Amino acid sequence: MRNIKLTIEYDGTNYCGWQIQNKKLKQKKENRTIQQILENFLSKILQEKIKLVGSGRTDSGVHALGQVANFKTKSKLNLQNIHNGLNSILPLDIRIREAEVIRMSFHARFSAKRKLYRYTIVNNSFISPFERRYAYLVKFPLNLRKMRKAARLLLGKHDFRSFQAVEKDKRHSVRKIFRLDIRKKDDLIYLDIEADGFLYKMVRNIVGTLIEVGRAKIKPEDIKTILKSKDRSCAGPCASAKGLNLLEVTY
Amino acid sequence: MRNIKLTIEYDGTNYCGWQIQNKKLKQKKENRTIQQILENFLSKILQEKIKLVGSGRTDSGVHALGQVANFKTKSKLNLQNIHNGLNSILPLDIRIREAEVIRMSFHARFSAKRKLYRYTIVNNSFISPFERRYAYLVKFPLNLRKMRKAARLLLGKHDFRSFQAVEKDKRHSVRKIFRLDIRKKDDLIYLDIEADGFLYKMVRNIVGTLIEVGRAKIKPEDIKTILKSKDRSCAGPCASAKGLNLLEVTY
Repeated sequence: MRNIKLTIEYDGTNYCGWQIQNKKLKQKKENRTIQQILENFLSKILQEKIKLVGSGRTDSGVHALGQVANFKTKSKLNLQNIHNGLNSILPLDIRIREAEVIRMSFHARFSAKRKLYRYTIVNNSFISPFERRYAYLVKFPLNLRKMRKAARLLLGKHDFRSFQAVEKDKRHSVRKIFRLDIRKKDDLIYLDIEADGFLYKMVRNIVGTLIEVGRAKIKPEDIKTILKSKDRSCAGPCASAKGLNLLEVTY
Repeated sequence: MRNIKLTIEYDGTNYCGWQIQNKKLKQKKENRTIQQILENFLSKILQEKIKLVGSGRTDSGVHALGQVANFKTKSKLNLQNIHNGLNSILPLDIRIREAEVIRMSFHARFSAKRKLYRYTIVNNSFISPFERRYAYLVKFPLNLRKMRKAARLLLGKHDFRSFQAVEKDKRHSVRKIFRLDIRKKDDLIYLDIEADGFLYKMVRNIVGTLIEVGRAKIKPEDIKTILKSKDRSCAGPCASAKGLNLLEVTY
């Protein structure tokens, strides 16, 4: 038995996110997910039923440069053959960057220490055809100084319930943000957010709130009140999925 | 009467190039061209038949960050309204970067002094989902030192007939290449080629030849013989359209 770790890139535009849907949804073509496609192809290549564990789900339309997943297999097929085999049959919008054999105790989700996401905003009157799938267009001017001031108040350990999408699951909502960098290059604004974990839609809710700060709808210091409120309705709107990219998972 | 200059970006993946096809081809949806779409929308917005002149055609699948075109109009519609109007109705893979009123004698094709193209190669065992529409995958290792040596031999004024696709039109085939820079960033190789003009498929035939030099199928110094031969069959193959992008036209 081997435990195999995959590092995966995908353009999430045409997928219903990472995670396999329930059986009813799964039947429709428009509900296909990255995990489902990878499990199907792995099972074909390895001639056994494969269960793939992802580092976490990414939502419909969200991209990844560095999603990580692992699976266990009895197959003796050479690792390079599994890697090349997958890349030769996968659709062009999913690619395996790396495949490696890893200790049996490695679990893509539970072993993860940190995750790094990048959110890309185009701050212009129009969005370039080359960015249209990977960035979110904000037409009104954004004050980066204010956004950075608000971002600093989010750093460290907080209860991020105000930035969590409403869900049945009400687990522990304290997370630690290690960094939240905002930088501008031409008309592109990149927000890099690294934390020990993220609540459901937390990155996009933080970005949506920082955009409101950037356009002076929310004051930077209001972040403190928003955090304290533990109330989703106090924060800004959820930013579009297409601007989000899972860059790296650290173990 | 005003003469209006447009600077246009497009993702050429879903188009049959820049230039309007003959009537028979035009009827099929898969034969739609950028010029045709722009003329249709301009005619709608300006309420008169518009004839758009491009700096030159780009082939099916070729992209542009800086294609230039001009048209004359009797309409008194405000320039900003024309610009915004176009961007609000154009498909997302075509965008107007700039619109300006220019002297009546300006002609996007005849007034052009230089054109700058970029060709992007991915030199790796696979192509990233994010590059798959905009770069050409070369799996075997490329020797950049040799490619640069060959590139230097193409600089300056030459008869580039060996790099021209076979065509009925046999006009003057002397062109001047001002620069041909090759640089690498991670697994991406960028070839920037600037000249006073290009023959049909000249950039892609040059890139295809330089790739052959990079993988040691052609010696760098053979470029001299290839130029002298004035024979298309002596040069390398034509590189894929999707790696090509018209960056800038200088007037």
